[in-house]
Amino acid sequence: MAGVRAVKSPWAGRDRAAEREEKREAVLQAAAQAFAEKGFHQTSLDDIAALLGVTKPTLYYYARNKDDLIVGASERAVAQIMEMLATDPHAAALTQLQNMLRRYAEIMSTNFGRCIEVMRTARIEGEAGAAVLEGRRQIDRRIRDLLRLGAQDGSIAPCDERITTFMIAGAINGIAAWYKDDGQLSASVIAERMVNQIVSGLAPR
Amino acid sequence: MAGVRAVKSPWAGRDRAAEREEKREAVLQAAAQAFAEKGFHQTSLDDIAALLGVTKPTLYYYARNKDDLIVGASERAVAQIMEMLATDPHAAALTQLQNMLRRYAEIMSTNFGRCIEVMRTARIEGEAGAAVLEGRRQIDRRIRDLLRLGAQDGSIAPCDERITTFMIAGAINGIAAWYKDDGQLSASVIAERMVNQIVSGLAPR
Repeated sequence: MAGVRAVKSPWAGRDRAAEREEKREAVLQAAAQAFAEKGFHQTSLDDIAALLGVTKPTLYYYARNKDDLIVGASERAVAQIMEMLATDPHAAALTQLQNMLRRYAEIMSTNFGRCIEVMRTARIEGEAGAAVLEGRRQIDRRIRDLLRLGAQDGSIAPCDERITTFMIAGAINGIAAWYKDDGQLSASVIAERMVNQIVSGLAPR
Repeated sequence: MAGVRAVKSPWAGRDRAAEREEKREAVLQAAAQAFAEKGFHQTSLDDIAALLGVTKPTLYYYARNKDDLIVGASERAVAQIMEMLATDPHAAALTQLQNMLRRYAEIMSTNFGRCIEVMRTARIEGEAGAAVLEGRRQIDRRIRDLLRLGAQDGSIAPCDERITTFMIAGAINGIAAWYKDDGQLSASVIAERMVNQIVSGLAPR
């Protein structure tokens, strides 16, 4: 109405959608924490409802089932990983790879990132998990491409790109298995040291 | 009886024990294959019985339950790993580590070895799994010890031993996730290349 300022109504469609999205986010965070700490098959919807202090019927308003939650949490991490794949194309391939791997390692120490590993090892597959599987494949492809590029620009020693990609992905995904939030080292320090180690190798230079 | 040659009887205690052991081994092999290919929670005792062409009651004669099978299979791999920990103490630490890691990598591509990873990610714990958990810890300790020794004898560049151990274990345990028996490379070639990559790093020398 002309002359009347808009009122922020909790019943307004847009706000309710935003509120629902915010609550779904909280549900995903709680689920991700539970899955990361206890494992997928060991976590029940009751556990997640208890973590949030809500009833199970309330939970069902934000998630259809456990698969929906692990997929949703992993998709959040995949979205962050997709951003990270865009690196500076003018830098040497090794520099691009290091930057990407550091961010990747940091994501794998978050609860959402850890869910990618939980999901992989719990073998949640099918249509619902297709985006996450595709995200994992894109990471691997990007690593392989940069290894190949590095062999061309001289910044990376020529190697078996497939095995080396598995080596790198294994080391970085492994962070999801042992990282603890209450550990002595921050996620970024761990990421830094892990990537430096992958780059420099064990033998003295 | 004097003058009468001993008869090899299928009822003789010793042979029956050996026969039972042999059959339990076959059950463990079949279970390990199923767990490695389908995952722990996705495999039923019915699946394993079907693989062997026996009934489920027959299976129960050789294994109490699924946990018993995954633990038994992983213990076989742990026993092989324990043998591998005994390396030549007169060699440089880097050589000792390389030899150990190659064997470790080869074991992680067998069905028994893959069960160690299946067991870890399925979070089978408790008393039954204690020997396997202890085996995993011993591997990690041995890697850390050799990294420290290598920094002393000059064969390994000084590093954050904890992070580097996680890096190495992640890369090698990762083989269990992607290795396929029908792949183009043999387990020993993969082990060789993986270990060389860990040793030499990505940056050109």
